[in-house]
Amino acid sequence: MSGSLSPLAPKTYAEMPPVRGVRMATAAAGIKYKGRTDVLMMVFDRPATVAGVFTRSKCPSAPVDFCRANLPGGIARAVVVNSGNANAFTGRKGRESTKMTAEAAAGAVGCSEGEVFLASTGVIGEPLDATKFSGVLDSLAASGTEDFWFEAAKAIMTTDTYPKVATRTAELGGVTVRINGIAKGAGMIAPDMATMLSFVVTDADIPAPVLQSLLSAGAGPTFNSVTVDSDTSTSDTLMLFATGAAEGQAPVTADDAALDDFRAALNDLLRDLALQVVRDGEGARKMVEITVEGAENDAAAKRIALSIANSPLVKTAVAGEDANWGRIVMAVGKSGEMADRDRLAIWFGDVRVAVDGERDPAYSEEAATAVMKRQDIPVRVEIGLGTGKATVWTCDLTKEYVEINGDYRS
Amino acid sequence: MSGSLSPLAPKTYAEMPPVRGVRMATAAAGIKYKGRTDVLMMVFDRPATVAGVFTRSKCPSAPVDFCRANLPGGIARAVVVNSGNANAFTGRKGRESTKMTAEAAAGAVGCSEGEVFLASTGVIGEPLDATKFSGVLDSLAASGTEDFWFEAAKAIMTTDTYPKVATRTAELGGVTVRINGIAKGAGMIAPDMATMLSFVVTDADIPAPVLQSLLSAGAGPTFNSVTVDSDTSTSDTLMLFATGAAEGQAPVTADDAALDDFRAALNDLLRDLALQVVRDGEGARKMVEITVEGAENDAAAKRIALSIANSPLVKTAVAGEDANWGRIVMAVGKSGEMADRDRLAIWFGDVRVAVDGERDPAYSEEAATAVMKRQDIPVRVEIGLGTGKATVWTCDLTKEYVEINGDYRS
Repeated sequence: MSGSLSPLAPKTYAEMPPVRGVRMATAAAGIKYKGRTDVLMMVFDRPATVAGVFTRSKCPSAPVDFCRANLPGGIARAVVVNSGNANAFTGRKGRESTKMTAEAAAGAVGCSEGEVFLASTGVIGEPLDATKFSGVLDSLAASGTEDFWFEAAKAIMTTDTYPKVATRTAELGGVTVRINGIAKGAGMIAPDMATMLSFVVTDADIPAPVLQSLLSAGAGPTFNSVTVDSDTSTSDTLMLFATGAAEGQAPVTADDAALDDFRAALNDLLRDLALQVVRDGEGARKMVEITVEGAENDAAAKRIALSIANSPLVKTAVAGEDANWGRIVMAVGKSGEMADRDRLAIWFGDVRVAVDGERDPAYSEEAATAVMKRQDIPVRVEIGLGTGKATVWTCDLTKEYVEINGDYRS
Repeated sequence: MSGSLSPLAPKTYAEMPPVRGVRMATAAAGIKYKGRTDVLMMVFDRPATVAGVFTRSKCPSAPVDFCRANLPGGIARAVVVNSGNANAFTGRKGRESTKMTAEAAAGAVGCSEGEVFLASTGVIGEPLDATKFSGVLDSLAASGTEDFWFEAAKAIMTTDTYPKVATRTAELGGVTVRINGIAKGAGMIAPDMATMLSFVVTDADIPAPVLQSLLSAGAGPTFNSVTVDSDTSTSDTLMLFATGAAEGQAPVTADDAALDDFRAALNDLLRDLALQVVRDGEGARKMVEITVEGAENDAAAKRIALSIANSPLVKTAVAGEDANWGRIVMAVGKSGEMADRDRLAIWFGDVRVAVDGERDPAYSEEAATAVMKRQDIPVRVEIGLGTGKATVWTCDLTKEYVEINGDYRS
């Protein structure tokens, strides 16, 4: 945990009940600092199915490569997450390190290396000494408990100012199943590399291809719709595991209507975690929800929304509580997507500030400024060309962001 | 002029000799503030040829639309530039305003409205009251002088902390011709909208299509290779005029080898002005030159270079004098262009910090940090895949940037 609690932190945390079929434990392996919890191990005593969504970076970390290679197997028995070192841009040594960690984990739980999944977050470019795991994974595998979600969320924090947890239930195949998730944030701080990690587990029984279909679809409007500063980590990892430990559930065979309730609960949980991540953005004091409607199509709407969300001028205006809609127009214009200046309309909250390519004749600076003074600020842009729609979330750009990221690596 | 002089400002300014065939004058028309010079008029007593490059924004300002419409005519007799109001996102009123201004300018110099070019910079979304020009353009047209370049550069400043001027000579068609240019910066400050304006005039005799070919080619590696914060103005305008007043020049018929010396001088001048603009970026304390080599092709190299140049994490690291090459890797990875992590090499100045996908075994933190402490920082990235190459320039991201742009519009 670094710095003081984000002003956007949740007032209360979800009570995290166990999810049948998964046990967790943490340890201080001394990856980078002494005496600090830096390893989380999740163990599935019976094989779980697995799905994953990873960074789009062309220079991914060694653990991302490792997970991608194991994903087609569809089976997970163990997950090992470490902080303090991202094992990114570590070349051949990085691959040796993931192999060694996977061997140790597989030995500890009695499975194959292909059933192990890994994630690392921390400093980049430093070789990760995987021998440090050897001594701890056996005892972690043996000592894990089901009632450890909040501790697990705390263990994977690096620059986060609060742990991120969420839980949901859903009706599936005649029974009630549970979905729990933890995440660590898009906060980025020297000496650490940016990384968003999230691990979600359900006790539902869902085949891996269906699980992947659910997760791939769910990530788009949630984790892939939040941005802190437009910078993409080499290590972003979102994984979903299904233990199948909910007894009596009717089999699932395809991503169809039988999954509607589960899908809704999962998407709601993913959105919850993603918003917790953006609310913990470095230096963030305000959360901005940007909705673009009337674009050529949904993909165009999302590109316009992200152009707004990633604009330093928009984000500094939000920090300054300035209803500067000209910068929204600028960001729409630079997105490269179809837009007709003279059809644009822009709202801050319920206050329409611009319409038909001009300032709203009824525009009230006072009313717009009142919206900007809120902690959560909704921005809506109507493009007026089609039916494409998207919502993304970001935070403001503050001096604290510059301070945090401009500090010399200690 | 706003704030204190940029620490990256030039130590001396070029002496700006006259360019035959163009006269200039300025006035205080009270567009936004009283008693402040806010209009520049350039007059070509004999028709000049003209070329232009404009913002790629899909929501351009009314003057940009106006200039684009007149450009095919190829002839310029007058240019009117105002500060204080960008005439952007002003709808129908914006078009009426450009028409009224052009009528006044055409009347003042005795030409058609199609031979007038306009640019506006300042607040966005406010109607521009063009009647304010009516009273001043007649006297400006009458009183303009050739020896007014430095004053002209000062008149178009908004958030710039210094005027931007450059001059060159070239051999063309048996005579020596001159090229003068002025620019105003990519600095963006409340309440003004970002805008880069630049006007270049030569006394060479060059047909408009050839002039356009020269300018379009020249803008790519110069003005289109600098970025302050990735935000694109609705009003960016770069124009080149050729008065043909250099006597005795052999005719130019095509953009061919006969123009080599002129082309080189023009490109050098454009680069000079573009770098002056980025050195005046808001809050800038350091200038960064980013060269990407070995990409799939030149366009890919430029996209990777701009991904690095626009990364908030890279720019805050530069502000913190932190040789954080992991963030360079991150920015290469997120560019979406082909990159092989294990072939990457990165230099800060002459210090190779990473090679073959790992930290350079001979890496010296001390040597890299010494480079970061410089005012001008060269960064070089070798992708190792092809022969594509590009160089772009940016500045650091400082708390001052946030302060300037987060201030409530006064």
